[in-house]
Amino acid sequence: MTTIEQSFSACYSFPVCFTRDAFAPSNSTLTDVLRRAGERSCRLLVVLDSGVAQADPALLERIGSHVEAHRDRLELAAAPLIVRGGEACKNNGSEVERIQAMVGQLGMCRHSFILAIGGGAVLDAAGFAAATAHRGIRLIRMPSTTLAQNDAGVGVKNGINAFGRKNFLGCFAPPFAVINDFNFLQTLAPRDLRAGISEAVKVALVRDAAFFESLYAARAKLAAFEAGTMENSIMRCAKLHLEHIATSGDPFESGSSRPLDFGHWVAHKLEDLSSGEIRHGEAVAIGIALDALYSCRTGLLGSEDLHRILTLLQQVGFNLYHRLLDDMDLPRALREFQEHLGGELSIPLLKGIGEQVECHELAVPLYREGIAALAAGTRKSRKRETMDEQEELPDDETRHSGSLLHGEPCPAP
Amino acid sequence: MTTIEQSFSACYSFPVCFTRDAFAPSNSTLTDVLRRAGERSCRLLVVLDSGVAQADPALLERIGSHVEAHRDRLELAAAPLIVRGGEACKNNGSEVERIQAMVGQLGMCRHSFILAIGGGAVLDAAGFAAATAHRGIRLIRMPSTTLAQNDAGVGVKNGINAFGRKNFLGCFAPPFAVINDFNFLQTLAPRDLRAGISEAVKVALVRDAAFFESLYAARAKLAAFEAGTMENSIMRCAKLHLEHIATSGDPFESGSSRPLDFGHWVAHKLEDLSSGEIRHGEAVAIGIALDALYSCRTGLLGSEDLHRILTLLQQVGFNLYHRLLDDMDLPRALREFQEHLGGELSIPLLKGIGEQVECHELAVPLYREGIAALAAGTRKSRKRETMDEQEELPDDETRHSGSLLHGEPCPAP
Repeated sequence: MTTIEQSFSACYSFPVCFTRDAFAPSNSTLTDVLRRAGERSCRLLVVLDSGVAQADPALLERIGSHVEAHRDRLELAAAPLIVRGGEACKNNGSEVERIQAMVGQLGMCRHSFILAIGGGAVLDAAGFAAATAHRGIRLIRMPSTTLAQNDAGVGVKNGINAFGRKNFLGCFAPPFAVINDFNFLQTLAPRDLRAGISEAVKVALVRDAAFFESLYAARAKLAAFEAGTMENSIMRCAKLHLEHIATSGDPFESGSSRPLDFGHWVAHKLEDLSSGEIRHGEAVAIGIALDALYSCRTGLLGSEDLHRILTLLQQVGFNLYHRLLDDMDLPRALREFQEHLGGELSIPLLKGIGEQVECHELAVPLYREGIAALAAGTRKSRKRETMDEQEELPDDETRHSGSLLHGEPCPAP
Repeated sequence: MTTIEQSFSACYSFPVCFTRDAFAPSNSTLTDVLRRAGERSCRLLVVLDSGVAQADPALLERIGSHVEAHRDRLELAAAPLIVRGGEACKNNGSEVERIQAMVGQLGMCRHSFILAIGGGAVLDAAGFAAATAHRGIRLIRMPSTTLAQNDAGVGVKNGINAFGRKNFLGCFAPPFAVINDFNFLQTLAPRDLRAGISEAVKVALVRDAAFFESLYAARAKLAAFEAGTMENSIMRCAKLHLEHIATSGDPFESGSSRPLDFGHWVAHKLEDLSSGEIRHGEAVAIGIALDALYSCRTGLLGSEDLHRILTLLQQVGFNLYHRLLDDMDLPRALREFQEHLGGELSIPLLKGIGEQVECHELAVPLYREGIAALAAGTRKSRKRETMDEQEELPDDETRHSGSLLHGEPCPAP
């Protein structure tokens, strides 16, 4: 009979601030951000990662002092709510429900704030709760890990695991603001410091060759978690992620192509299979290695470049092999990845450092070869370490055995 | 230290189609809509309101025949999922979870479709499931009631009731398409046919005086649910709602002002208190009457206009009083309404027909007077009906007792 064409656009903007010691009484980052809301005083519910609370026992007191020092702008709706840190926060809906229930009990409105402090998993769960209570109350993320500061915490996603699938439930919801406090890095265990570096390597590989060069040159400093190097890499990585969201033309991922998911299809499955024992960043490092190996074996990526990628990842401290790879159902992992993204299969591969290409069909046996190569490489690497007891990072990149590059390049699919 | 300002916009567009007998084999509305996705064949999960399935027992068969006739474009992922119709669908998360679980089990991806057929409550629950599974799979709404066709079904909201609050959980998520099939109206009980008319009155009152005139002139036909009149009012009401979303500058309601929530603060509380016994549209009719009475008593709205508003609502068949109004905690209802919308209290009132004004403070005793006037008006109206046994609609609008307008207008707040 007739059709009305509805069409409109929505504008989103939020600041991503970098600071140190955000809760020092004299630090105005949080209050400056809140001033953007225009209201005189803002009601906040602090949602705090149990891991962060344990690693920094004075944090709660500092939050209290900060709020007291800025009581004309800030009001805590309740004492901070401590939620389980790590993947436990996302493994069912219970933490999300606790947060939603508190929003209701405390009479918080859409103009109130949730200030979520923690790793990526806590930010994801708190973000889902914030996005769905009253159809969305304001969220300020304060990411505490390398990975959350340079990737998960600056994006537009949230989510929890459900029905046995990672991030099955969630939505796209830009935050009100992100505050990256570098002091949190001081409280991290080496594993959590390192894990986020893989996302920096990833975004460099698909978007920015110069950034890759700087990471490669600084690999010894990254391996030692040298503060300035870590902070620079976090800022640049965050900036590249933000630029991608703003300029891709598909901020809420309605298409099938997801260049920033390079290395992620294997990573998601590894995390699943290990029930969270393997951290996201660690799984991504393995995923990058496998997708880079595959890119090389299909003739897309030069072997020199592959060498440098594997060297960087390994010398930063990532283990590029895990026994769960051996039995992994690769076709199923691909299918699940495709399902979550939607549409046709589209796997980002590398046709050079800083240059990404979408691939719509993968030769699974070649991936098997890649896994075998990583397993062999790790064995040789371990043997060599035992023999050499070497202190210095090797200049000649001999740590990777030639077996990683064994075989003729296959034609591109 | 430094701040990155993130900024981007997202464009949304979707068709709202009006048709008859959408599942007739020759009707191409659904397939035309699906063609916009570009894919060759589309996977659909049909989510069907139990009330619709009962009222139209042949519907399932018609759906099957339609899919068969268009099997090159359409594929059912499974047999239609029948969910509880009415507010029961929204009263807890169980129906939402059933839908989400099926999306997972069936391996549906973000490019798959949920086709939700039903009243506003089912569309709200199915919409929430669709918006959160895989962070959003495509939703086609096929609203079955007057209210869903002219209001709830064409908007950008979804949600369920939780923690004792109406629509406490949900998100903003534009649909992929809306198909308004007027044939569904033939299966509706008078209550459901009538309920949606209040939203047409509402949007006319706040946006379009000429539309109000046409509704007023056609009140006898609306009371008789004359098909052409009903259809025209649905189309115009839907169009006004769509225009508001597209042009308000705040499609996802981040501000405090919500002109289309005229009459809704009392309505939401009434629905709550009656546990869904009072339909949304019926509650909105009462809410409109009370807000119009208040607008008049504060000197904003002329008494002639008030008369016409009340006459239209009552002659269309709405009962403008319910005993639950007597004990209603009005300050609490205002507080809850404010919380859900966020920010400062902002209640839309009328300063004329077609002209709305935001009010930030209400005099509760004046509302009490309005409730008493509605109660008295209803008593007199009943008495008169018993005495007169009149068949014709009164021309002189004497059905409303003078008591509705008793008292001096108060100064505007």
